[in-house]
Amino acid sequence: MSEKNTFVTKEQIEEIAKTYPTPFYLYDEKGIRDNAKKVNEAFAWNHGFREYFAVKATPNPFILKILKEYGCGVDCASIAELKMAAACGFKGDEIMFSSNDTPREDYAYAHKIGAIINLDDITHIDYLESIIGPEFPEVMSCRYNPGGVFKMGNDIMDNPGDAKYGMTHEQMIEAFTRLKEKGVKKFGIHAFLASNTVTNDYYPTLAAQLFELAVELKDKCGVDIAFINLSGGVGVAYKPDQPSNDIGVIGDGVRKKYEEVLVKAGMGDVKICTEMGRFMLAPYGVVVTKVIHEKHIYKEYIGVDACAVNLIRPAMYGAYHHITVLGKEGAPEDHTYDVTGSLCENSDKFAVDRKLPEIEIGDYLVIHDAGAHGYSMGYNYNGKLKCAELLLKEDGSVQMIRRAETLDDYFATFDFCDILKDHEDL
Amino acid sequence: MSEKNTFVTKEQIEEIAKTYPTPFYLYDEKGIRDNAKKVNEAFAWNHGFREYFAVKATPNPFILKILKEYGCGVDCASIAELKMAAACGFKGDEIMFSSNDTPREDYAYAHKIGAIINLDDITHIDYLESIIGPEFPEVMSCRYNPGGVFKMGNDIMDNPGDAKYGMTHEQMIEAFTRLKEKGVKKFGIHAFLASNTVTNDYYPTLAAQLFELAVELKDKCGVDIAFINLSGGVGVAYKPDQPSNDIGVIGDGVRKKYEEVLVKAGMGDVKICTEMGRFMLAPYGVVVTKVIHEKHIYKEYIGVDACAVNLIRPAMYGAYHHITVLGKEGAPEDHTYDVTGSLCENSDKFAVDRKLPEIEIGDYLVIHDAGAHGYSMGYNYNGKLKCAELLLKEDGSVQMIRRAETLDDYFATFDFCDILKDHEDL
Repeated sequence: MSEKNTFVTKEQIEEIAKTYPTPFYLYDEKGIRDNAKKVNEAFAWNHGFREYFAVKATPNPFILKILKEYGCGVDCASIAELKMAAACGFKGDEIMFSSNDTPREDYAYAHKIGAIINLDDITHIDYLESIIGPEFPEVMSCRYNPGGVFKMGNDIMDNPGDAKYGMTHEQMIEAFTRLKEKGVKKFGIHAFLASNTVTNDYYPTLAAQLFELAVELKDKCGVDIAFINLSGGVGVAYKPDQPSNDIGVIGDGVRKKYEEVLVKAGMGDVKICTEMGRFMLAPYGVVVTKVIHEKHIYKEYIGVDACAVNLIRPAMYGAYHHITVLGKEGAPEDHTYDVTGSLCENSDKFAVDRKLPEIEIGDYLVIHDAGAHGYSMGYNYNGKLKCAELLLKEDGSVQMIRRAETLDDYFATFDFCDILKDHEDL
Repeated sequence: MSEKNTFVTKEQIEEIAKTYPTPFYLYDEKGIRDNAKKVNEAFAWNHGFREYFAVKATPNPFILKILKEYGCGVDCASIAELKMAAACGFKGDEIMFSSNDTPREDYAYAHKIGAIINLDDITHIDYLESIIGPEFPEVMSCRYNPGGVFKMGNDIMDNPGDAKYGMTHEQMIEAFTRLKEKGVKKFGIHAFLASNTVTNDYYPTLAAQLFELAVELKDKCGVDIAFINLSGGVGVAYKPDQPSNDIGVIGDGVRKKYEEVLVKAGMGDVKICTEMGRFMLAPYGVVVTKVIHEKHIYKEYIGVDACAVNLIRPAMYGAYHHITVLGKEGAPEDHTYDVTGSLCENSDKFAVDRKLPEIEIGDYLVIHDAGAHGYSMGYNYNGKLKCAELLLKEDGSVQMIRRAETLDDYFATFDFCDILKDHEDL
């Protein structure tokens, strides 16, 4: 396998580790900025294009504020994410509220701050009315689920028919009709049909479906379609031998469908939105961890100071995350290791049977592509604490953008009583 | 499928929900106590038997203190769990420290409070010495991994050879020899070879192996084997048609092997330890959640106010958790539902294609067998907050034993800076 490049050197990490003990997340400001620019360029042909960054991927206000500089909005899934977005200065239509099985207080707060509400289900029209009253927002969106099997390119598919999200075709027509009656003036269509695709065909294939639906909804319901939200699903190549998505090719593919369907139907003013999390951030965040043990039993194990608490994807999904041994980037990968964390879960392994250079205690490992759905999926199993997040700035300096958890955080939900108070060490 | 009984009625939950909003964990004090008694009775034949409750299963000090009344110790896997145990009054040999890939500070603290240290690896002897100095504790334990495939009963097996834990047979001999030289006087043997078994054969089969190893280690190394730690692995029947473990039968099975091997070898003073988490707590904790949505698309969905943040096992492992619709215990299960949480993860479903009575909005659902590895595996994905834990006491009253998280908890790791401070709602 070819080597994936890191955005940081062994010397830099040795310097950073003097101030911030491992493990930690490290984000690459330059990478985030360059990629955000590329995304905007890929869709520059569309007047009003906006990427709504999926906060759930990397819920860090410092990151959100960087993306805001590139005109990005935010895609929020809960009241906590809405509040973080509002605190970061996102306002009104810069915020998309895409949730499902939504609690009342989340809708109430989304409405209060003027976020664009994307309804997941036909029943949510009455539900929303019971919360915000009869006066509906001027702009609203509905989530579409075409059902069945979704095919893109060769042999790549997903099963929207098994997904809990969205409305049927018939329900979309009913929803747009009813929302129009309730005073909604501008409509959006949203769909998420496949996760982490690494084919440049996904967005164009999805777009074609949604554009045709938009034309139909405009005709049948007499509504103004303001935007099409392609949501997320554009993935990254976690494995070094995987082809990467080319966002330029993807943007161009969407443009072709846009011209074929929407422009032809006289709807050349429809805005395109995206809600990418993984593509925006995954490659620009890594977990840096130090080797603290090596173990030789029936297999060779390398024990590091990070564990699934820091990055759960390998334990939860068996996900591959590439690993670079810092300072040994060019060395022959002639050893086979399981790289393990310290949880009492045998699935707590960052790599299984991985070919790597010979590793020694004290080596720093970089676990790649952890910038999205990494920290945000962390838990505290076994009483382990989540680590800090650091930003490697464009000028080479490092800024802490989230502190590590402490035992006080871990025990915080007992602060209503004194059950833990009488121990000197707490 | 037959119905699993709940320990709480609809009327009780309606009363509790007036004070504590759903979702919440509810634990059954009587169930916990009765079961703890049964475990002690099952091993009463062994002088010195002790169950070391696996804190990772249910890290709640109120629960730990109940178990302490039955002579239980605690099995800790991290410094946080050790500190919680110490704060609850567990001392010295009441605490087993069974970890792997262990950080230095965890060993230092375990040693400081006199916990029994269970070494996971041969290399940890030198590692421990580098932390605590040359004076080793009088009592120590080593974890054994026999490798290969472990078979119990018919067609049930697991693969210790693929597990990261423990020492090889050869390493066990070397470890005991070296530890004896370092002044250790009493030894324990620990092994964990299979998770959540629902055969009464697991402990007896494991015990036979460990007892034979104990005789060998005594002979070869000339050491005093003080205890055999059977660790966890005794599971519960999550599905209503699964046979349950009978702890009496299990205890008796271990006794037979004990007599056949240890008593015969003149080692009738060896103590048996267990480290059960699931068996001690799983059936005596439930998630109580309220139905807030029903959705009809390509399948029938019931949306509840709990999500994978409260109980991750279905999303992470596809685990089955039985569901009772309160007040409809006897009703025909003639509807087929997916019961979903609100995460933007299609795996956030507490049940898929589950036959249940007809469900209406406002119904309370009890999600069974969540008392172990339930709350403790919770995360905050999508910015969702973890719920409270409540104890249904023997007298029928309810005590909050952990408060629900708040947005302040969620944002706590940004308290070093003012990035979120200028928003009125935070």
